[in-house]
Amino acid sequence: MTFSMIDVNRVFNFNAGPSALPLPVLERVREELLDWHGSGMSVMEMSHRSPEYEGINADAEAGLRKHLAIPEDYAVIFVPGGASMQFSMVPMNLCLPEKRVDLIHTGTWTAKALGELTKGGIPHRIASSTEEAKFMRVPRPPEITLTPDASYVYLCTNNTIEGTQWTTFPETGMVPLVADMSSDIASRGIDVKKFGLIFAGAQKNLGPAGVTVVIVRRDLAERADKNVPTLLQYRTHIKAKSLYSTPPTFAVYIIGLMMDWMESEGGIAAVERQNDAKATLLYGTIDGSGGFYHCPVERESRSKMNVVFRVGKAGGDEVVEKRFTQEAALAGMAGTAGHRSVGGMRVSLYNAVTVEAVTALTDFMHEFRRKHG
Amino acid sequence: MTFSMIDVNRVFNFNAGPSALPLPVLERVREELLDWHGSGMSVMEMSHRSPEYEGINADAEAGLRKHLAIPEDYAVIFVPGGASMQFSMVPMNLCLPEKRVDLIHTGTWTAKALGELTKGGIPHRIASSTEEAKFMRVPRPPEITLTPDASYVYLCTNNTIEGTQWTTFPETGMVPLVADMSSDIASRGIDVKKFGLIFAGAQKNLGPAGVTVVIVRRDLAERADKNVPTLLQYRTHIKAKSLYSTPPTFAVYIIGLMMDWMESEGGIAAVERQNDAKATLLYGTIDGSGGFYHCPVERESRSKMNVVFRVGKAGGDEVVEKRFTQEAALAGMAGTAGHRSVGGMRVSLYNAVTVEAVTALTDFMHEFRRKHG
Repeated sequence: MTFSMIDVNRVFNFNAGPSALPLPVLERVREELLDWHGSGMSVMEMSHRSPEYEGINADAEAGLRKHLAIPEDYAVIFVPGGASMQFSMVPMNLCLPEKRVDLIHTGTWTAKALGELTKGGIPHRIASSTEEAKFMRVPRPPEITLTPDASYVYLCTNNTIEGTQWTTFPETGMVPLVADMSSDIASRGIDVKKFGLIFAGAQKNLGPAGVTVVIVRRDLAERADKNVPTLLQYRTHIKAKSLYSTPPTFAVYIIGLMMDWMESEGGIAAVERQNDAKATLLYGTIDGSGGFYHCPVERESRSKMNVVFRVGKAGGDEVVEKRFTQEAALAGMAGTAGHRSVGGMRVSLYNAVTVEAVTALTDFMHEFRRKHG
Repeated sequence: MTFSMIDVNRVFNFNAGPSALPLPVLERVREELLDWHGSGMSVMEMSHRSPEYEGINADAEAGLRKHLAIPEDYAVIFVPGGASMQFSMVPMNLCLPEKRVDLIHTGTWTAKALGELTKGGIPHRIASSTEEAKFMRVPRPPEITLTPDASYVYLCTNNTIEGTQWTTFPETGMVPLVADMSSDIASRGIDVKKFGLIFAGAQKNLGPAGVTVVIVRRDLAERADKNVPTLLQYRTHIKAKSLYSTPPTFAVYIIGLMMDWMESEGGIAAVERQNDAKATLLYGTIDGSGGFYHCPVERESRSKMNVVFRVGKAGGDEVVEKRFTQEAALAGMAGTAGHRSVGGMRVSLYNAVTVEAVTALTDFMHEFRRKHG
């Protein structure tokens, strides 16, 4: 099969998720769409019990294990339901009788996790919060007080709405650290051994929406009461190698392609260097704008994945900000508007966002400032 | 964008699910994969909060409403987690205090639903079972005894593994009838008003795996205790129009394309006629084979979606059956082997399976019988 392509119109996509996918991955999906590897069918049309799909599933897992350096005593599973389902699944599986959950509160996503703990009647406590700092930073180590026998400590490694990101994680000793890593997984090297459980909706750095990757220390998956609904127990998915019921096969296939793409990019260290370069370029443009652009996030907590900033003045000039989004769109740059709950601008720099895209954006920002500054 | 296609190898795909998709749908997906409607991005890369995706979501719902003739007092939602998640979600949402669930037991899928009722400690009873008939038919009306004040009556309209299908549904009066319609939704006209809730994993007649369509009478969705996890309450998805958290956007998009395809095929009545013709052709070949092919399912319960049969002799000759699958595969026909739990053959005739495919199969069956009969 050959494709002759005329005028494919692709924008620079700064969406916060679902978000940009690498062009080579999309091209491969397109190439294989009617006939995957001579099977005569699309991956979407394939039985999840076929050797072909079992291979696709195993390759996606192997790719994650390799690039994220996941040790053997951790299971890697593909769970349906979106990362938000994990706000309930984590406590259903990891709570110990009469022990509480320590939650570190850094904004919208930890608030959602907190809401499900409350709803489930699960004993918990906020072990630290930066609410008084409007979540414009993550907690500093002395601000965190942990319960020595907690069921687990919970945090969100990157906060898409607030634009903050953890760099050094709290030491939790024997208490497992559980991380919502939806928006920065695979963006930088991390030591999986520091965590008891990591979960991530795929739709930022791993693939399309519709599947959640869970990395869980195998012994912790055995904590769950066996009367928890079958599909909500991690052990079900571990035992069945993510094939207990029909999985979101096409999304898992794309995770595998994303891992192939990471390999072709030089692995996670190379991807991390590129992410550093992109963030440096964008924050540099903001900080060097003489106040025309303003990032409210404290410097040491600034996210390399989601850069939030205001335009026109420190608190943002909404008229100018609206114009920014409109002119950026006309210049072929999508997804620059901030989250509806906070306003301003938000630019997401996930792995698939190229240096070329960020350069185009910063060029646009210089020009926009010249015109409106 | 244009495609020049050379030698696309497509098999006749009789998989039980995930299963064949219509070629025009796959071609449309391919055409739009890098740039959906001039947006400059794939549907996979689109924010679920964008007007573009809201339109895709609304179109998929409107298509289902039109083709399945869904009344306004029913909500139509796209729920992540696969149909198996519904085995827990249905009781979590629809159980009334101290009332029991009446379950009509017709095989593997109702057994799974039963397992989750037991696990959840939910009062229930088997209102009818054809286990003594090895599930080779569905119950006859006099065999069904219903509880007048049950929370709901539960059945599975089409049993993929046993090859049975309901044609006339039991009258449940004021008690809502809940149907797992995963494997025959959109294959024939049904009166939605007879049901309180219908759910269906998309991966047979509606699209790819990874999304479940739930059609629920709005008043029933209000039964749920508000302390049920947010994502497991139907009302959450109804209120948010399936956009509470990031939905499986690409799968929902394909549901919309499938509904467009149904329209182009002439609507559900035309699709149903075609399904009847396909089933008549295949069952006719089996019944006219002088016993070489044998369908164990009682005639009035035979599924038009999943045709199960044995080859060689009534109980099946495993050597000949293995050869059947192998020779069929060589002749470009995939997915003819029976479910691992029962053996024999199984041929699925979902909407996307063409008359041409079934004709090729029955031609092959005549030839195979000549050679091995």
